[in-house]
Amino acid sequence: MSEAQPPILPRIRDSFARQTMMQTLGATLIAGADGICVIRAPVLPGLRQQQGAGHAGLTFSLGDTAAGYAALNVMPEGVEVMTAEIKINLLSPAVGDMLEARGEVLRAGRRLIVVRAEIWALTGERRKSIALMQGTMIPVDLA
Amino acid sequence: MSEAQPPILPRIRDSFARQTMMQTLGATLIAGADGICVIRAPVLPGLRQQQGAGHAGLTFSLGDTAAGYAALNVMPEGVEVMTAEIKINLLSPAVGDMLEARGEVLRAGRRLIVVRAEIWALTGERRKSIALMQGTMIPVDLA
Amino acid sequence: MSEAQPPILPRIRDSFARQTMMQTLGATLIAGADGICVIRAPVLPGLRQQQGAGHAGLTFSLGDTAAGYAALNVMPEGVEVMTAEIKINLLSPAVGDMLEARGEVLRAGRRLIVVRAEIWALTGERRKSIALMQGTMIPVDLA
Amino acid sequence: MSEAQPPILPRIRDSFARQTMMQTLGATLIAGADGICVIRAPVLPGLRQQQGAGHAGLTFSLGDTAAGYAALNVMPEGVEVMTAEIKINLLSPAVGDMLEARGEVLRAGRRLIVVRAEIWALTGERRKSIALMQGTMIPVDLA
Repeated sequence: MSEAQPPILPRIRDSFARQTMMQTLGATLIAGADGICVIRAPVLPGLRQQQGAGHAGLTFSLGDTAAGYAALNVMPEGVEVMTAEIKINLLSPAVGDMLEARGEVLRAGRRLIVVRAEIWALTGERRKSIALMQGTMIPVDLA
Repeated sequence: MSEAQPPILPRIRDSFARQTMMQTLGATLIAGADGICVIRAPVLPGLRQQQGAGHAGLTFSLGDTAAGYAALNVMPEGVEVMTAEIKINLLSPAVGDMLEARGEVLRAGRRLIVVRAEIWALTGERRKSIALMQGTMIPVDLA
Repeated sequence: MSEAQPPILPRIRDSFARQTMMQTLGATLIAGADGICVIRAPVLPGLRQQQGAGHAGLTFSLGDTAAGYAALNVMPEGVEVMTAEIKINLLSPAVGDMLEARGEVLRAGRRLIVVRAEIWALTGERRKSIALMQGTMIPVDLA
Repeated sequence: MSEAQPPILPRIRDSFARQTMMQTLGATLIAGADGICVIRAPVLPGLRQQQGAGHAGLTFSLGDTAAGYAALNVMPEGVEVMTAEIKINLLSPAVGDMLEARGEVLRAGRRLIVVRAEIWALTGERRKSIALMQGTMIPVDLA
């Protein structure tokens, strides 16, 4: 992608690396700072629905994770976040060379962080929006 | 589970078998008829979030699939369903011997099928509700 | 309705009486205890959408309020609740002699209360489900 | 507001005028064309929750209506739209001189129109986002 991405905070990188699901999905962390997180993953053969497109669960997993790390990067050190609830509207089948999920923070409160994510299918130079998510993350103090 | 489950319709079984995602998740189809679908899967080591619980994407994938097949089994032959939108409220971490997702049809219209799913973590004899989903499936005529 | 309803807690009754919106909607509190709240209202002429059915905002207002008071009645004294988020699936037009909303608590956590509501249109002896809601209330300590 | 608003299509204006709910809420149609709709309303004394802020049902009604007319203005003549489902995240209490809801179309399909709405409280020159909505409208052919 030609546009500049924000960098990746070390604690986002570390937490992402501990998510075995991201490895199973073949996902790569592209950006994670300033209330934004971008993740990319191919539509691996083992992650399909019955007609060969990517499973809704793949699209959801990427969007939810991007939204969660968008939230995490506005939290103080030592605080984790969890998804309280999230909704996905699926716009088009997950078919393409690669999926890209971009999460962003819409409102960071003390108790609730409202987030949004969009997921695109990338095919050559083409970029098609396939899903929109809106949800709530909650901070979890691990100390 | 000691309570009787509905049987599994052949086209549910066939469609489920074509979802490679279900194999990657280690999921088993337990019931699929009469507007109900039940799926079970372990929390495999490769499907975890950063703290070792099952990833929200795992819980979502099982619930969405159970809700989809609940909808499919009230559709005429030759019609598939797709998720238009679905929302998940996560109640507890996905930790246990096994996860069980149960999807059901709440309203089957001509154009929209409103569905619900609940997901439990099963640990020994204990059964803990970990997530609730509510969404919309749409029929897709493949003919 | 012939089935017994739970009673109404005094603080539910008091809070409901302070909601001027409920008076504008012509709403009556039918039950409010034990994690359940039931509200009824007619489809007043001033609350319609463009085709003469009750506005989605009417259905939502009744369901959200029923869900909120269901949550309130499991909270300790001195704590209020607010809606953090809620989703509605509309099943049928709001047409009938009366609407009835029933809210219930699905999970009461320390920080989040997950709720559900169903809304019916009552016409003579007939009872038709017109909407389903699922959402999150948060406790607000007023002290 | 100093920024230019899109004009108002005649059929949006006509349909809005038939919604008695909009009159009860004191709502005014500000813009309705090009996949966008903007509505404003004061927080009337009869539309409050128990603590004196605008009721969530007021915020919802404005956002849902703005989203619906955003969808309507991309539909062919003779087609109406209905809300199939919509979700609201409430960010702040509805307190201010005026509320403004802006609906927009995110994806207009043949069978489903995915929409978003944002609602702000306007106080003097200040503009505070109080709610975000994401949902699905369906076309209804009245012919």
